[in-house]
Amino acid sequence: MNGEHIHSAFDRDLEQLQADLVRMAGLVEQALRDATNALVTHDTELAAKVRREDKRIDALEDAINEEAARLIALRAPLAGDMRLVLSVIKISGHLERMGDYAKNMAKRTDLIADHPMVETAPAVLKRMANQVIAMMHQVVEAHISQDSALAHEVRDSDAEVDQMYNSIFRVLLTYMMEDPRQIAPCMHLHFIAKNLERIGDHTTSIADQVIYAVDGLRPDEDRPKADLTSVKDLTGS
Amino acid sequence: MNGEHIHSAFDRDLEQLQADLVRMAGLVEQALRDATNALVTHDTELAAKVRREDKRIDALEDAINEEAARLIALRAPLAGDMRLVLSVIKISGHLERMGDYAKNMAKRTDLIADHPMVETAPAVLKRMANQVIAMMHQVVEAHISQDSALAHEVRDSDAEVDQMYNSIFRVLLTYMMEDPRQIAPCMHLHFIAKNLERIGDHTTSIADQVIYAVDGLRPDEDRPKADLTSVKDLTGS
Repeated sequence: MNGEHIHSAFDRDLEQLQADLVRMAGLVEQALRDATNALVTHDTELAAKVRREDKRIDALEDAINEEAARLIALRAPLAGDMRLVLSVIKISGHLERMGDYAKNMAKRTDLIADHPMVETAPAVLKRMANQVIAMMHQVVEAHISQDSALAHEVRDSDAEVDQMYNSIFRVLLTYMMEDPRQIAPCMHLHFIAKNLERIGDHTTSIADQVIYAVDGLRPDEDRPKADLTSVKDLTGS
Repeated sequence: MNGEHIHSAFDRDLEQLQADLVRMAGLVEQALRDATNALVTHDTELAAKVRREDKRIDALEDAINEEAARLIALRAPLAGDMRLVLSVIKISGHLERMGDYAKNMAKRTDLIADHPMVETAPAVLKRMANQVIAMMHQVVEAHISQDSALAHEVRDSDAEVDQMYNSIFRVLLTYMMEDPRQIAPCMHLHFIAKNLERIGDHTTSIADQVIYAVDGLRPDEDRPKADLTSVKDLTGS
């Protein structure tokens, strides 16, 4: 049992762990895509599917945690490898929460289906969802290829999600003030936008994990770009 | 080396791990308290302290991760114990992010100190910070005593933080529309409120970890109370 042997056994276990993480991210992405489509097209059938499938996401988190713990116990990885395994544990936790938000979005499909849709809302929500899905893709790619520059990009682009959230919040507020009958559907739309914004936040947390696992450093600044885009956003209206 | 011996060695290690987690939570709480006071009283000295102290929070997360990994490797804990150790790893990750948000708040003290303070902002921010600090206290207590009922309470009370954030967002928006010179300071205040709201979200994630570690179940609903308080909030204005 020489160093090389131990190393390759660790690599094999790690590959399995990464494959499960990618599978988990794929399920979360699908859930988010389905939840958004269900909302926009009032497809209660598709929404029900999202709610059912969330159990598979939860089960994968459990499996990943067990595998990771087994890997630590068996292979006793050193500094850099250990950081990587711990980052997988933390990333799986974020993905699980993101799945919950998608499920929560799906739950509102039934509630929204009874109301006429606020005009501009579907387009904005869809754009927000697409942005978040693109970020998820990137951050998983950044994790797998251990690419901290890509992770930094993901961090920066979360400011756009925040900006979309702020703008939809103001649009909905205006609708509600103009017509109190719009309050119930607008409120649901607001929480959907909020969920998307939170999914964006979790993506940023995953990006932080990647940066830490790769560089051993924590990102110093907390998304500096958010300020500038916000100034533009708030003065331009 | 019988079962009891192994068990007590695990307990001793776990106690050490929990003590460090409590210490870490204490530092994050202090950072949040100091960052809020620095902002409200324009105390740039205190803000600088918060920024310096964040390194200690980061170092404690590293120490906790290492200890937890050592504990898994050495004691190979079974189902319930393993869930508990994994939850400590995940909770330390959330606390580290919360510390970052406090640091980010502190960084804005210098920027805000040059402007006259928006009248109602300090009181609202302080109330929001106090609410978040109270939740942090509760959730750490829930973790240490493995009390899932208390964790559920924390989850529910996050809706109040969201409500405070929404109300301050609208107040700041009004200020900015009325007087464009207020845009810069209001923007900073908005990001501070946003940071507090995100700290609240992380507290909720910790509560979820506690519930999962104790009951082996994931909280089903995503903070159902938020809807009701928001209806009241949005119609009452």
